[in-house]
Amino acid sequence: MGKFLTSRSEDYSQWYNELVVKAGLAEQSAVRGCMVIKPYGYAIWEKMQRQLDNMFKETGHYNAYFPLLIPKSFFSREADHVEGFAKECAVVTHYRLKNDPNGAGVVVDPAAKLEEEYIIRPTSETIIWNTYKNWIQSYRDLPILCNQWANVMRWEMRTRIFLRTAEFLWQEGHTAHATKEEAIEETMKMIHVYEQFAREWMAMPVIMGHKSDNERFAGALDTCTIEALMQDGKALQAGTSHFLGQNFAKAFDVQFTDKSGKLEYVWATSWGVSTRLMGALIMAHSDDNGLVLPPKLAPIQVVIVPIFKKSEGLQKISERVDPLIAKLKAMGVSVKFDDDDTQKPGWKFAEYELKGVPVRLAIGERDLENGTIEVARRDTLTKETLPIEGVEEKIVTLLDEIQQNIYKKAYDFRESMITKVDDYEEFKKLIETKGGFFLCHWDGTTETEEQIKADTKATIRCIPFDGEEEEGKCMVTGKPSHRRVLIAKAY
Amino acid sequence: MGKFLTSRSEDYSQWYNELVVKAGLAEQSAVRGCMVIKPYGYAIWEKMQRQLDNMFKETGHYNAYFPLLIPKSFFSREADHVEGFAKECAVVTHYRLKNDPNGAGVVVDPAAKLEEEYIIRPTSETIIWNTYKNWIQSYRDLPILCNQWANVMRWEMRTRIFLRTAEFLWQEGHTAHATKEEAIEETMKMIHVYEQFAREWMAMPVIMGHKSDNERFAGALDTCTIEALMQDGKALQAGTSHFLGQNFAKAFDVQFTDKSGKLEYVWATSWGVSTRLMGALIMAHSDDNGLVLPPKLAPIQVVIVPIFKKSEGLQKISERVDPLIAKLKAMGVSVKFDDDDTQKPGWKFAEYELKGVPVRLAIGERDLENGTIEVARRDTLTKETLPIEGVEEKIVTLLDEIQQNIYKKAYDFRESMITKVDDYEEFKKLIETKGGFFLCHWDGTTETEEQIKADTKATIRCIPFDGEEEEGKCMVTGKPSHRRVLIAKAY
Repeated sequence: MGKFLTSRSEDYSQWYNELVVKAGLAEQSAVRGCMVIKPYGYAIWEKMQRQLDNMFKETGHYNAYFPLLIPKSFFSREADHVEGFAKECAVVTHYRLKNDPNGAGVVVDPAAKLEEEYIIRPTSETIIWNTYKNWIQSYRDLPILCNQWANVMRWEMRTRIFLRTAEFLWQEGHTAHATKEEAIEETMKMIHVYEQFAREWMAMPVIMGHKSDNERFAGALDTCTIEALMQDGKALQAGTSHFLGQNFAKAFDVQFTDKSGKLEYVWATSWGVSTRLMGALIMAHSDDNGLVLPPKLAPIQVVIVPIFKKSEGLQKISERVDPLIAKLKAMGVSVKFDDDDTQKPGWKFAEYELKGVPVRLAIGERDLENGTIEVARRDTLTKETLPIEGVEEKIVTLLDEIQQNIYKKAYDFRESMITKVDDYEEFKKLIETKGGFFLCHWDGTTETEEQIKADTKATIRCIPFDGEEEEGKCMVTGKPSHRRVLIAKAY
Repeated sequence: MGKFLTSRSEDYSQWYNELVVKAGLAEQSAVRGCMVIKPYGYAIWEKMQRQLDNMFKETGHYNAYFPLLIPKSFFSREADHVEGFAKECAVVTHYRLKNDPNGAGVVVDPAAKLEEEYIIRPTSETIIWNTYKNWIQSYRDLPILCNQWANVMRWEMRTRIFLRTAEFLWQEGHTAHATKEEAIEETMKMIHVYEQFAREWMAMPVIMGHKSDNERFAGALDTCTIEALMQDGKALQAGTSHFLGQNFAKAFDVQFTDKSGKLEYVWATSWGVSTRLMGALIMAHSDDNGLVLPPKLAPIQVVIVPIFKKSEGLQKISERVDPLIAKLKAMGVSVKFDDDDTQKPGWKFAEYELKGVPVRLAIGERDLENGTIEVARRDTLTKETLPIEGVEEKIVTLLDEIQQNIYKKAYDFRESMITKVDDYEEFKKLIETKGGFFLCHWDGTTETEEQIKADTKATIRCIPFDGEEEEGKCMVTGKPSHRRVLIAKAY
C-alpha cells in the first residue's frame, strides 16, 4: 500500500504534506497561507472541539463571542503585547468597493477609508479586556470564566497546513480573577486539562512545563505549555496557558472593589489550543500507509467492506451485517458499510488504511457459510477471523485496546527519545544524529538560550513541572544550574 | 416587575434594545457595528447551533471550513453577485504594522501593501466554488453537501444587535449537484428544515415562500425564505435557501463528466441562518417582564429559589431539593439552584423572569412542613403549589406544555395579523394602523413592488408555497394576478 505515499524515512516533510491532502483532511486555498479544512479533517476537529468544550464546561467555563476586528490603537496599550503581536497581521483599511470606472471589475473605493484601521484578531486579549472593563465592578462580578471558539489570523511568512497557517481555528479562554493565587491556579488547571485531553483523546503523551522568559507569550508573566514529540524527533508545542498577572487589567484599566472596599486591578489568564492539534495528531501516530487515528477521535471507527461477486451476494451480506451495524450503533460506535460496487475491496482496504479507520471488517460469501467475519486493526495492521456472533462486544473492547496501544506506542517512542546530556559537544552531535528531547542543565540566561539556538536551531521547550531539583552545571557556560530543562528542535 | 424595562407599547424598539442588554444576551463593542455575544446569549445560540447541526447531519450534510478572506477579483466573476455583495465590505489592504518612528504606538507599514486586496467574506459562494473546481471531475464526486459554521462581515450602515450587525455568526450550506432537479429538491429540503427548526425549537411559526425577483439573493435563480412575524407587526426574514442554477459553476468553470461521458456545468444551492435568529426569538415571544424562552432553547430550564432566613433554613431546604435536582438532571432537564445569600428572593424572581427561565420553583420553610413546592411558569406568569413528591414528572410535562403554549400564542397572534386586502387605499391605511402580514394581489412587476415600498415602506416578503391559485387584480395597477403574495413592513 506504500504506493500512495512518500515514506517517512524517505522524506518526513513530504510524507506529511501528501498525507494531509490524500487523506482528505485539508488543502491549500487561493488565499495566501490559508487552508481549506475538508469534510474528513473537519469531522476530526469537531470531535476535538466537542470534547474540549465538554471539559471546559465541566471545569466551570462558558462560551461567548467577541469581535473579529480590533482597533489598531488597542495593540499599543500593553507594551509587551504590541512587540509580540502587532507586527505581521491583516489590516483592514477600507469598507467599500466600487465598480472600476474603466470596467475592470471592482476596485477599492478611496473615499471609504477608515479613520482608524482595524486588525483581524491574532489573539483577543485586547478587545476582551476592553470589554471586561464594563463587566467588572466588584468582587461579586468575579471570576469571569469565558472561552471563545474563533478564527484568528497571523500573517506568517512560512506556512504549513495545520501547523502554521495565516488563518487558523482555535479556542481562547480569557479569565478574570480577584486574586493572584486564583489566577495562577486557573493557569495550572487549564494546562492540566490540555494534558489530559492530549493523553486520553489524542493518545499523545506530552510534557508540561513553564516556558523560559524568552519563549513566553507577549504580555504574560508565565506561560505553561504542553510539548509533544513527533515521529521525526521534533517537538511540537500543542497548547499553552498563560498567567497574565495584572498587565491587561492595567492596560485597559479594569479595577474591582474587593471585599474590604479597596480598589484593585483584576488578575488574568488566557489559554488556547488550535487546529495545530490536527497536525500533532497526524504526525504523532500515522505511518507509511496513511493516517492512524485514535478511536476516540476517528469520524468512522469501524468500516465494513463486503466482498461479493454479484448483487445477490451483496444482498446476502447486507442481511447478515445489518443487525451487527445496529448493535454497534446502539453501543455508540460509528460504523460505515461501504457497499459501493464501483470500487474493488482491495482499493477500499487501501483507502480506509489511508484514512486511518481503526477497525476494518471484511465479510465474504465463505464467511457467510462459516458464520465468521475478518477483523483488521489499523494500528498494528494485523487481522484475524472471528465468529460474527457476539463480535460487537469484541469490537468495542478492541477499540479501547487500540486507543491504549496507540498511546503506549507514542509513549514508548517518546521515552526512548529523551536523552540526558551534560556536555555541549555531545549535545550538538546528538541533536543532529538522534534528535528528540534533551534534558540538560542551563544557566537560565537568554544569552545562553540564544546561543544554543544559533548553534543548533534547538530551543528550550520548557522547564518541566515534574523535573527534579538537581545540582549541575550549564552545558554551555558551566555556570550553576538547579534543574534540567527540556530542549529540542521544534515545529 | 415592569420597572426593569421600557414596555413594548411605550417603545417597542427601546424595549428590545434594553432587553438584549439587561438579560445579558449581547452588547455593543468598541468596533463599529459589531456586537459582543455575552455568555447567556451565546448559550442560547449554542443550543440553536447544536440542533441545526444535528438536523443538517440527519439530512446527509457535513461540515468543512473555508478561508475568511476572499481575493477581490473573485467578486467580479459572477455578474449579479458583484452587484449585490462587493460594495459594503471590509477590505484588507496591508499585512503588517510597525512602530511609529515618532513613538505614537503602531502604524500601518506602507511597505506591506498587498498586491491584490482581500475582502472579509460577506458570504462564501465565490471562494467555495473556486475550491469545488478542484473537487469535482465526475458525477461520482457529486453531490457535495457541505456546510460551514463561520463569521461573516457586511459593512451595514445602520446596525442593530442580532438583527443587523457588521459581523455576525451563521452557517452557510453550499451544495453541488449533477442535475437541476436535485438542486431544486435540495433548496426546498433546506427551507423545510429551517421551517421545522423555527416551529419545533424556536416555537415560532413562519411562512415559507419564494422571494420576488427584486428580493432574490445576488446570483440566485430562486430564493426561498421563511418569514416570521414579530409582536410589533413587522416581518423578519429568518432564513433563506437559494437555488443558484449553474451561475457559480459557470463563473468558476466547474464542470463534471456525467454518466454518458458528457461535460456539464454543476448545479448549486446555498442556504443559511444566522445570529439574526436570536433577534427573532427575542422579539417573537418576550414580554414587558423580560425574555420568554421556549424550554427547548433555554440554557436554564428550571431555577429553584430557596426562601430562608438563616443558614440552617437553607441547609434544610438544600437537603430537600437535592434529590429533586438529581432526578430532574437525570431526566435531561437543566436546573439551577440559586442559593446565593446576598440577594433576596424577590430580586431573584425578577431576575429569572428577565432571563426567561421557563419554570421557577420556590420553596420555603413552610413548604418543608407541608411537603410542597411552588411552581411558577414564565409564559403565563401563573403559579401553583404542588406536593414536592413526584413533582419532577409534572415539571417535565410542564416544560413540554410551555413549549407548545408559546408556539400557540405566537401562532394565534400571527393568524390574527394576516389580512387579505384588495384595495390599495385600504392597504395603505391598514399597514399603518394594524400592521402585520397582508395577502394581496400583485401584478408581478418590479415597478409595482417598488411603488408599494415607496408609498408604504412595505415589501413583498414572499410568494407563499401554500398560496392558492386565485384570480384577482393587482391592488395597485388593477392588472391580472393569479395568486396573493405576502406583504409587510420588515426588519
